[in-house]
Amino acid sequence: MSEPTTPVACLLLIGNELLSGRTQDQNLAFAGQRLAALGIPLAEARVIADDTATIVRHVNDCRQQFDYVFTTGGIGPTHDDITAAAVARAFDRELERNPAAEQVLLEFYGDKVNAARLKMAEMPVGAVPIDNPLSGAPGFQIENVFVLAGIPSVMQAMFDALAERLDRGAPILSLTLTTNCREGELAAGLGEIQQQFPAVSIGSYPFFETDRYGVNLVLRGTRQDDLETVAAATEALIASLAGDCQR
Amino acid sequence: MSEPTTPVACLLLIGNELLSGRTQDQNLAFAGQRLAALGIPLAEARVIADDTATIVRHVNDCRQQFDYVFTTGGIGPTHDDITAAAVARAFDRELERNPAAEQVLLEFYGDKVNAARLKMAEMPVGAVPIDNPLSGAPGFQIENVFVLAGIPSVMQAMFDALAERLDRGAPILSLTLTTNCREGELAAGLGEIQQQFPAVSIGSYPFFETDRYGVNLVLRGTRQDDLETVAAATEALIASLAGDCQR
Repeated sequence: MSEPTTPVACLLLIGNELLSGRTQDQNLAFAGQRLAALGIPLAEARVIADDTATIVRHVNDCRQQFDYVFTTGGIGPTHDDITAAAVARAFDRELERNPAAEQVLLEFYGDKVNAARLKMAEMPVGAVPIDNPLSGAPGFQIENVFVLAGIPSVMQAMFDALAERLDRGAPILSLTLTTNCREGELAAGLGEIQQQFPAVSIGSYPFFETDRYGVNLVLRGTRQDDLETVAAATEALIASLAGDCQR
Repeated sequence: MSEPTTPVACLLLIGNELLSGRTQDQNLAFAGQRLAALGIPLAEARVIADDTATIVRHVNDCRQQFDYVFTTGGIGPTHDDITAAAVARAFDRELERNPAAEQVLLEFYGDKVNAARLKMAEMPVGAVPIDNPLSGAPGFQIENVFVLAGIPSVMQAMFDALAERLDRGAPILSLTLTTNCREGELAAGLGEIQQQFPAVSIGSYPFFETDRYGVNLVLRGTRQDDLETVAAATEALIASLAGDCQR
């Protein structure tokens, strides 16, 4: 029996405020965790400016390279919200007022609806809205591209609303060992373990804190028994180094 | 007199732990802020996996497109630290033990030096080390590419050590106005102001908190008098909407 193929994802974080450092991104870590749990590894993310040509180029590059593309940011009512129009251009489709999205906005805003707010119903022809239970204005899907809000709480709610549309792979499991061995002491043995067990990815992440230093060793793979085998080999390595370092 | 050209930068955040969501990135916001202050806008960032072919492809793509490229991550002693070798391959140069970097490591580790730790002195031929006052092992520069550590405190110390090597543009200034108007009320007038003053970039960033909502309007440009002119126009817009919202 052949292994099922694993779909892979790309995240496009759209917004000048991320590149200027004004806003600390929170969407990358959320998407990475949720996609790993769905068995859809996040293979790449790009942070790009609110610029039409830039968005068009990256959407087209990524939607051809990856199974799924998620964009965040730039779908509000103001002049700097250009993501929907740019995605329409990337797909060479007209931008239209999506009837279902318009209905949502009319109900959400009531007599406070205006032209700027109705702009948030504009989507490429053929797009399917994504529910926004927090602030009304929906995101949308077009082919393998999912266009989400930038505000983390809204982005997260939209992600929950779209997750059922995704084809899933085997969930990626992880197991973390922490040691106060230094990386330089572990490196040789750890490299040998990695060579012996290629199905598990071993990441080595040192930390320096004021009262403590050491390394987090993160084992990732799709089979729990593989993780446990590699964990046992790694524990044995750490024990063998006990003269220099200990758990 | 022609305006001086503005150099632009790209950041390559290298690390599986960022894409899996295990580690919350802090280097993007730091680099964005510091580069803006140096007059070198961060135009793009990419988060990529610890994979040689992937690193080679992105380093080569970015070093041709941008004046400066900064990489973070993957320069430690373990098997998953492959950035230096990948950057050498991107430049089609041999990896060699840099004599100056080797000397630093011999002094830093003393009798605890070993093969894994000396791996951190391996750099492409022609690379110039970047001081690491925190944990010994240096980063390096090769042409317009600066290879830095991933741990935020170490990355920041390396950035401080290299900043004097960069050609600077006009520092990017910013001015933030906060209002509890909603974006949908501001959008029409704000779009007109943006059209009238193209030298200032106006970003509109709504926030929803439990006890408070509103919008941060962030004005960015290189001339303080431009920012103040646009701020006055925006204040006037907000005042004109006072029936619907107020500061």
